[in-house]
Amino acid sequence: MTDLSGLFAPERVVVIGATDREGSVGRALLENLSTFEGEILPVNPNRETVLGEQCYPGIDAVPDTSSSDLAVVAVPASGVVDVVRQIADADLKNVVVITAGFSESGDRGRQREQELIEVAEEYDLNLVGPNCVGLICTVSGLNVTFAQGRPPAGNISLMSQSGAFIAAVLGWAAQHGVGFRHVVSLGNEAVLDEVDFIAEWGDDPDTDVILAYLEDVDDGQRFIETAREVTKHTPIVVIKSGRTEAGAEAAASHTGSIAGSDEAYTAGLHQAGTLRAMNIQEVFDFGQVLAGQPLLDHDEVAIITNGGGPGVLTADAIGESRLTIADFGDEVSADLAELLPEEADVTNPLDIIGDADLARFRQTLDIVLGADTVGGAVVLSVPTALFDFEELADALGDLQKRHEKPVVACLMGGEEANHAADILETYGIPNYFDPARAVPGLAALAEYRDVTERAYESPAEFDVDHERASRILAEAVDRDVEYLGVEAMDLLDAYGIPTPAGGLAESAADAEAIAAEIDGPVVMKIVSPDIIHKSDMGGVEVGVPIEEVQDTYQSIHERATDHEPDATVIGVRVEELVDPDESTETIVGAKRDAQFGHLVMFGLGGIFVQIFEDTSFRVAPVSDREARDMTAEIQAAPMLRGARGRTPADLDAVVETIQRVSQLVTDYPAITELDVNPLVVSPDGVHAVDLRLTVDSEELLSGY
Amino acid sequence: MTDLSGLFAPERVVVIGATDREGSVGRALLENLSTFEGEILPVNPNRETVLGEQCYPGIDAVPDTSSSDLAVVAVPASGVVDVVRQIADADLKNVVVITAGFSESGDRGRQREQELIEVAEEYDLNLVGPNCVGLICTVSGLNVTFAQGRPPAGNISLMSQSGAFIAAVLGWAAQHGVGFRHVVSLGNEAVLDEVDFIAEWGDDPDTDVILAYLEDVDDGQRFIETAREVTKHTPIVVIKSGRTEAGAEAAASHTGSIAGSDEAYTAGLHQAGTLRAMNIQEVFDFGQVLAGQPLLDHDEVAIITNGGGPGVLTADAIGESRLTIADFGDEVSADLAELLPEEADVTNPLDIIGDADLARFRQTLDIVLGADTVGGAVVLSVPTALFDFEELADALGDLQKRHEKPVVACLMGGEEANHAADILETYGIPNYFDPARAVPGLAALAEYRDVTERAYESPAEFDVDHERASRILAEAVDRDVEYLGVEAMDLLDAYGIPTPAGGLAESAADAEAIAAEIDGPVVMKIVSPDIIHKSDMGGVEVGVPIEEVQDTYQSIHERATDHEPDATVIGVRVEELVDPDESTETIVGAKRDAQFGHLVMFGLGGIFVQIFEDTSFRVAPVSDREARDMTAEIQAAPMLRGARGRTPADLDAVVETIQRVSQLVTDYPAITELDVNPLVVSPDGVHAVDLRLTVDSEELLSGY
Repeated sequence: MTDLSGLFAPERVVVIGATDREGSVGRALLENLSTFEGEILPVNPNRETVLGEQCYPGIDAVPDTSSSDLAVVAVPASGVVDVVRQIADADLKNVVVITAGFSESGDRGRQREQELIEVAEEYDLNLVGPNCVGLICTVSGLNVTFAQGRPPAGNISLMSQSGAFIAAVLGWAAQHGVGFRHVVSLGNEAVLDEVDFIAEWGDDPDTDVILAYLEDVDDGQRFIETAREVTKHTPIVVIKSGRTEAGAEAAASHTGSIAGSDEAYTAGLHQAGTLRAMNIQEVFDFGQVLAGQPLLDHDEVAIITNGGGPGVLTADAIGESRLTIADFGDEVSADLAELLPEEADVTNPLDIIGDADLARFRQTLDIVLGADTVGGAVVLSVPTALFDFEELADALGDLQKRHEKPVVACLMGGEEANHAADILETYGIPNYFDPARAVPGLAALAEYRDVTERAYESPAEFDVDHERASRILAEAVDRDVEYLGVEAMDLLDAYGIPTPAGGLAESAADAEAIAAEIDGPVVMKIVSPDIIHKSDMGGVEVGVPIEEVQDTYQSIHERATDHEPDATVIGVRVEELVDPDESTETIVGAKRDAQFGHLVMFGLGGIFVQIFEDTSFRVAPVSDREARDMTAEIQAAPMLRGARGRTPADLDAVVETIQRVSQLVTDYPAITELDVNPLVVSPDGVHAVDLRLTVDSEELLSGY
Repeated sequence: MTDLSGLFAPERVVVIGATDREGSVGRALLENLSTFEGEILPVNPNRETVLGEQCYPGIDAVPDTSSSDLAVVAVPASGVVDVVRQIADADLKNVVVITAGFSESGDRGRQREQELIEVAEEYDLNLVGPNCVGLICTVSGLNVTFAQGRPPAGNISLMSQSGAFIAAVLGWAAQHGVGFRHVVSLGNEAVLDEVDFIAEWGDDPDTDVILAYLEDVDDGQRFIETAREVTKHTPIVVIKSGRTEAGAEAAASHTGSIAGSDEAYTAGLHQAGTLRAMNIQEVFDFGQVLAGQPLLDHDEVAIITNGGGPGVLTADAIGESRLTIADFGDEVSADLAELLPEEADVTNPLDIIGDADLARFRQTLDIVLGADTVGGAVVLSVPTALFDFEELADALGDLQKRHEKPVVACLMGGEEANHAADILETYGIPNYFDPARAVPGLAALAEYRDVTERAYESPAEFDVDHERASRILAEAVDRDVEYLGVEAMDLLDAYGIPTPAGGLAESAADAEAIAAEIDGPVVMKIVSPDIIHKSDMGGVEVGVPIEEVQDTYQSIHERATDHEPDATVIGVRVEELVDPDESTETIVGAKRDAQFGHLVMFGLGGIFVQIFEDTSFRVAPVSDREARDMTAEIQAAPMLRGARGRTPADLDAVVETIQRVSQLVTDYPAITELDVNPLVVSPDGVHAVDLRLTVDSEELLSGY
C-alpha cells in the first residue's frame, strides 16, 4: 500500500507558479498556506520575490529538496508535465497538480494527462489531480487550495471528485462547526484516486470517519475490496451524484463519461460497507454523529421530550427509519412513575411535560438511558422559563458519557439553542431543530453497527462442469451468434442449476425420442437465435402428449419460418412440463457493468420486475449471505416465505441458484447479459425454465 | 362566517391572572405584550399594581369594556368558566384561554371544558384554547403568549394544535428570518378550531400562505369544504403528525384520542387542496417559497451553476421530484454558446464554469429565464474570487422580478452566503446550502399551481334503485347480521354496478332453475354470514355444467355444515362464469373513517393490495375526476392502460364503478366497510364478482 502521509505532513511546501497577482490561483495558494507551520518555497522564473518572500526560478534552484517536501503545481497546462518531471528529479515524491486542461478538455488534454501519468509512474509519485482544488491538513495547518474558507480541525476526513463541492463546503463547514482532519480534492484522479485515500485514511488512527463525494468509481472491485476492509473499523459515508436518471444524464454531460448504473453503485457501495447519504445534509449529519457518538447496540430507541407534539413528530421520523420505539418495560416505567407528575404517561415517547425542570430531565434521562431495552435516545426540548438550554446541554453530555449510549438532541429554539448546540458539540452530540434530521443520524449509527458486525464470507465455489460450459459457449461462437436462448440450457445444467429434463431435437423423430424419455406430456419450444419472443409467434407448446410430438415439431417449425423467413432455426427443445404446486415465477439475472463487473439480480417475474422494479442486486461474486439477503430484501419476499397460507418456497435452492449464476458469469466474463426467466420456485425446489444470454464473442474467443 | 379579526386587532387587551411573580405565565404574558400598541389592562383580585401598572380586581372593574377588547385568561382551571362568563358579561367577544386542566386531563377537566363551551355558545364568543400558548399578531405588536422569542413580521400565518410546536418555532423563526403575520396556538379547540382559522385567514388579504401543524381534524368534511375554497387563492401547507404507525401510537398516547387513518388524511388533505409537508423543515421551506415566489407555469426548470458537481446533485434532486430538466432548445443554446467559453456545454444543467464572473451569471440567467421552455430556475454558485455573493444575490433578485419566474438559490458557502441570503430574502428568494432542499420548494410551487388550476366538479349522481337497496339492507338487519357477502350482490346491481347474471338458490332445484337461465357452465358459491373465506372450505365451485348443478348444490352445502356446524347457511349463489380475455382483478372498497366519513379505495387485487399496498384513496363523495386520478395513481396503473402489448382495460367502467360505490356508501352511512373484490376488469367492461360488507345494524335501523 502506498504511503500518502507525506501529502498531508510535509516538512516544506514548494509552490510552483507562485505569484502575487490579485485573484490568481498562485496567490490564493500562498495566502492559504499562511497557517502552515513548515517552510514555504515559492517558485516562479519571472519573479525574484513573491509577497515579500524570496522566489526561486525553478525547483532545481530550491536548496535541499527531498522526499519530505510537497510540491504544488499551478503553472499553465502546457508546462505541467515538464515541471512535474523536474519535481521528481529534485527527489520529491508528493505532488499536487491544481492546473486544469487535462483529460476533462479534449484530445490534447487527454494526451497531456497520459504523459503526466507516465512521469508519475516512472518516478513512483504520489500525485493528486490534475484539475483539482488541492488538499488540506488541519493538523499541520497545511492548506494547499485556492478556495476560500478554512475548516476547523476535527476527526473527519473528506475527499471529493468535485472541486466545486470542496469549494462550497470549506466556508460552510467553518460556520457550522464541522471539523476536518484531511480534505482532498481528487480532480481527474490521473494517479491517486478515491480508493488510495480510503486506504490511507483507513490506516490513519486519527481519522474517525471518512466522507466521500463521488461521481464515479473507476474500478468497482478494487473499491469494494479496499472499503470492505476499512469499514470494519472506520465508517465511510458516500454521496454518489448522478443517482437518478436526470442526475446521470447531467453527470454524463459534466464528466464526459457514463458512470455505471445506479443499481451497480447501490449494490457496490453496500457490499463495500459504506453508508450512502442521499444529499449533502446527510453526508455531514452522518459524519458528525459517527464521529461523535458510540454505535447503537440495538435498534430500539427512546424519545424524551417536554412537549408532546415534537415527540410525535420524532416518532413519525422513527416510524420512517429502521429504528423502533423501545418498550421501557414495567420496572423502568414504575421508576419513571415515581419521578413524574401524575398526568405524565410513562411510556415511550416519554413526555415529561412542559413544567419539567432540569432535575426532571436529568433524572428521567438517567433512568431511560439505563434501561436495557433502550439503545440510544433522542432528547427534545422546547424552551421554557424553567431551565436553561445550556445547562440541559451539559446534563445531556454528562449522561451520554456515563451511559455510553448514543444521544442526539433537538433543543428547539433560537439563539439559546445555538449556544446549547456549541456545548453539545464538545460532547460530540449533534443538535437539530427538526427531529426528522436527528433520527436518520441515529439510524446511521445502527446501520454502521451492522457493517461492523457482518462477516465477509468468501463466495462458495461449487463443483461445476467447466469443460462442458466452455464447449457450449464455444459452439455459440462457432454458430456466430451473440444471443443464446434455450439451446444453452445445458450451460445451466453444467453449473448445477436444475433444468427440466429434455433436450434439443433437430428433427421430428428426434423430438419424439426425447419425449419418450419423459413421463407425461412435454413442452416444446422453438430454438432460434433470431426469435426472441418465442411465445408471441406460437413457438411454444405446453402439455404436448407423446402422440402429437412429431406433428407439433413440424407446426412449430413452420410457424417459425412463416414468422421470420430468414431465421436460423436450430431445432425445437423438448422438455418435461414443470408445474409444481404453489409455484412462483422468479428471475435470476446478471449483467456486466463497466465499473463493477457483473451485477447479479433477483426478483419475482413479470410485472414485479417490469412495473414495480422490485428487484435486488449484488456485485458478483455473490456469497451465500448476500444471496440470502437478496431474496429477503425484495418487497415481494413474503410471497416466498409463505404469505397467505402458502407453503414456504425452497429458499435455499433459490439462494444456491443465485450463487451458481454468480459463479457462471464470474467464470465467463464474456457473458454480458444473462436471464434465467422464469426460475420456477416451489416448496420442493427450483427449475430454470427459460434462458437468454448474450456473449461478447470476440472476448470469448480470446479468453477461452 | 364568524369574523375573528378582533382576536388579532383588539383595541385593548385585558390580562386576567396578571401577576409579576417571576417565571409565571401571567408575568410572561405582560412582558410579551410590551410591544402591543394598544392599552393593556391587568386583572388580579389580589394585587393593586402589576409591574408598576394599575391592576383591576375583576373585569367588571375595568372601565369601558367593549367587543373591541381582547381578554386573555391565565387563572387556575377551576376559576376559568366563571371568569369567561364575567368577560362575556362585560361585552367582550374575543377570549384566549391559556389555562390547562380541561379535556386533556381527565373527567373533571372534560366537564369543565363542556361548561366552557356552553358559556361560549351562550354568548357567541370567539374563544381560543383552553390549554394553549396563545396568539400573536405581528402587525399590531400583539403577543398574548407566554413563550420566548418574537417572530419578525411577514405574510405567513401559522396555526398549531401543539403548543410546544409554537414554543419551539418562535425563537427559531426570529433567527431564521421566517416572518409571520398571525400565529395561533389552538390548544384544545373547545370552540374555535383549525377550520375557523383557515376560513379567517383565507379572507385576510395580507395572509399569503397559511401553515398548519395538525394532530387531528375533527370534522373532515368541513375541513375539506372550507380548505378547498381557501386554497383556490391562498396556499395551505399542513404538517400532520402521527402519520406513521409509530407516530400514530405516540399521538394516541399524547392526545388520548385515536386520529383517523393516515390514508384518510392523505386523501382528505389532498382533496382539500393543501400541500402536505413531511417534516418541520418542509413546512417552513414551502411556506417561504410560496410567500416569496410566483408559481411555476410548468414543470420544466433550469439549473445554472458555476460548479459541475453541485449541478449534478441538483439534477438528482429534480430527478426525485415531480419536476424535469427543461430542454433549452436550439435557439437558446445558440445564444448561450455565443456568450460562454468554448469548453462550456450549453445544455441544462448549465455549467457556466468556475471562471464565471457576475456578468456571465447575469447574462446567461437572463437568456435562460427568458426561454419559453423554462418555468423557473435553481441558481447555484460556489464562492470564487471573481465576484461577490452579495452582488450575485442582487442580480438574481433583479432578474427574477424582471422575468416573473420563480428562482431558488444555492449560494453555497459560509459567512458570505449568509449575507447574500439576507439580500435574497428581500426579493423573496430562498437560499439553501443543499440543493436537495431547494428543489422541493420549487416543486411545491408546481404542486400549488395544480391546486389553483383544478376545477372542483360535483360528484355525479347516478340514477339508482334506492328502494331495492334499502330493502336488501333491511333484510340483512332482519336476519340480524352485520356481515353480508354475495347474497348482497343485488345491492351492487341496484346501484348499477355490473354483476354476473345469476341469483340465490335456496334448494338444489332452485339452483338448477337459475343455472338453466345461464348460458354455459356456472359458478356456485356458498352464502353464509358465518363463512368468510368461502374458497378455503370448498364453498366455491367454478365451471359447473348444468347436469351437475343439483349435486354440487348438495356437496357445497354439506362441506359448509361439516366445516362450520353452527353456520347459518342462506343458500348457494349460482351465477354466470365471468372470465373475459385479458382480464385483471381489481378491488374497489370503502371504509368509514371517524373523521372524514367514507374513504373509497381502488387497487389491483391480491398481493398488490396486501404486500405492495399499491392502493389509492379518496374521501367520498368521489367525483369523476377524482375516480380517474385514483386509477392513474396506483403503481400498477400501466397494467390497466395496456402494458406489455395488452389491450387497454375499460377504464371508464372502472371510474364509473368507483363513483357508484362512493354514492352507495354516501347514501348508506351505516355501511362501515365494503369490498368489491374482485372487480374483474377487461377491455369490454367490469364485473363485480364478489362482495363483502359490514353494516352498523343499529344505525341502519334508526336511519331507514
